[in-house]
Amino acid sequence: MKSLTEHLWFEVPGRRGFLNISDTVEALVRKSGIREGLFLVNAMHITSSVFINDNEGGLLQDFEVWLEKIAPEKPYSQYHHNGAEDNADAHLKRTIMGREVVVAITNGKLDFGPWEQIFYGEFDGNRRKRVLVKIIGE
Amino acid sequence: MKSLTEHLWFEVPGRRGFLNISDTVEALVRKSGIREGLFLVNAMHITSSVFINDNEGGLLQDFEVWLEKIAPEKPYSQYHHNGAEDNADAHLKRTIMGREVVVAITNGKLDFGPWEQIFYGEFDGNRRKRVLVKIIGE
Amino acid sequence: MKSLTEHLWFEVPGRRGFLNISDTVEALVRKSGIREGLFLVNAMHITSSVFINDNEGGLLQDFEVWLEKIAPEKPYSQYHHNGAEDNADAHLKRTIMGREVVVAITNGKLDFGPWEQIFYGEFDGNRRKRVLVKIIGE
Repeated sequence: MKSLTEHLWFEVPGRRGFLNISDTVEALVRKSGIREGLFLVNAMHITSSVFINDNEGGLLQDFEVWLEKIAPEKPYSQYHHNGAEDNADAHLKRTIMGREVVVAITNGKLDFGPWEQIFYGEFDGNRRKRVLVKIIGE
Repeated sequence: MKSLTEHLWFEVPGRRGFLNISDTVEALVRKSGIREGLFLVNAMHITSSVFINDNEGGLLQDFEVWLEKIAPEKPYSQYHHNGAEDNADAHLKRTIMGREVVVAITNGKLDFGPWEQIFYGEFDGNRRKRVLVKIIGE
Repeated sequence: MKSLTEHLWFEVPGRRGFLNISDTVEALVRKSGIREGLFLVNAMHITSSVFINDNEGGLLQDFEVWLEKIAPEKPYSQYHHNGAEDNADAHLKRTIMGREVVVAITNGKLDFGPWEQIFYGEFDGNRRKRVLVKIIGE
């Protein structure tokens, strides 16, 4: 069994934003030399997400609007978590979008459908945060 | 390490529906010959889901009603993604239900609790779509 | 390839509650002797969750309030699943919070960010329920 571990750093300007990290993680599959295996990508912070969806700007706007409806940022006073903090909504938004994805590696590539792209979702930005990539296989 | 990769095709008539795929995927565990390992099942499309829940018809109706409340299909004009497309709600519904499940294989079987069943959830149907199964282990 | 399989039992008094199970699962990584690999933790019941978030009491209260807003317990009659059962809301809440987490093991430890903690989320308690831990790697 072979494995590869990498920590990626991202800094999203502003409180919220989405980054398409597909090319970055695909390059790590090649670096690993693994032909058959599993690929884990997860946010290492509890106010951000890694998820798979469509790389379409309108849809990313829809996610922003929808998450604000389900778990609004303000008023800050509506959340017990806030006080010293003001980011309770970011914990809830990340729960909807998910912490991690697990992807198959087949013939040395991410085994993706035609529109699958991997995104980093930031819900409490303006700071450097990490994403973990772990690949195991042969 | 052994591995097995299979792509399953499904066509759900109508826009939305749920298929219990438990028997189909359990058969793939036997085919793989893997006794101890991990089993990934994921939708390869970004408007469908793979999830684990109860095989009870009333509950599946509840999911349909609930998802329509959280991420309504209409009016189509409420979503930036729509225009050429009309399936923004399907991207949001799939986000709630999840892209993938990872299941343990123990003694050559899916290591499931008593009521766990695997479903394919379709939110933009009337077309052939794929599910990926990847098993790794020994 | 090495593997470890453990079934953990929990009984949460009351209908809903959250348990921090981080120390319990970390001990299993040491027990496994695995240095590089993947760690799956999943609820074996379809009315409970395993998820990763912050170990902060106010936030856990926020999750309780938020889940009751998105998928209210009562009136029981609003759900098709209820009748013989009264726990349809628990199936929906668990869907939001997630069935499972997959965590990287690096250098013999859970490869966690600074605030990541693993929780068991109970949405239909007052009974003994199981969580599965499966570790594979080398």
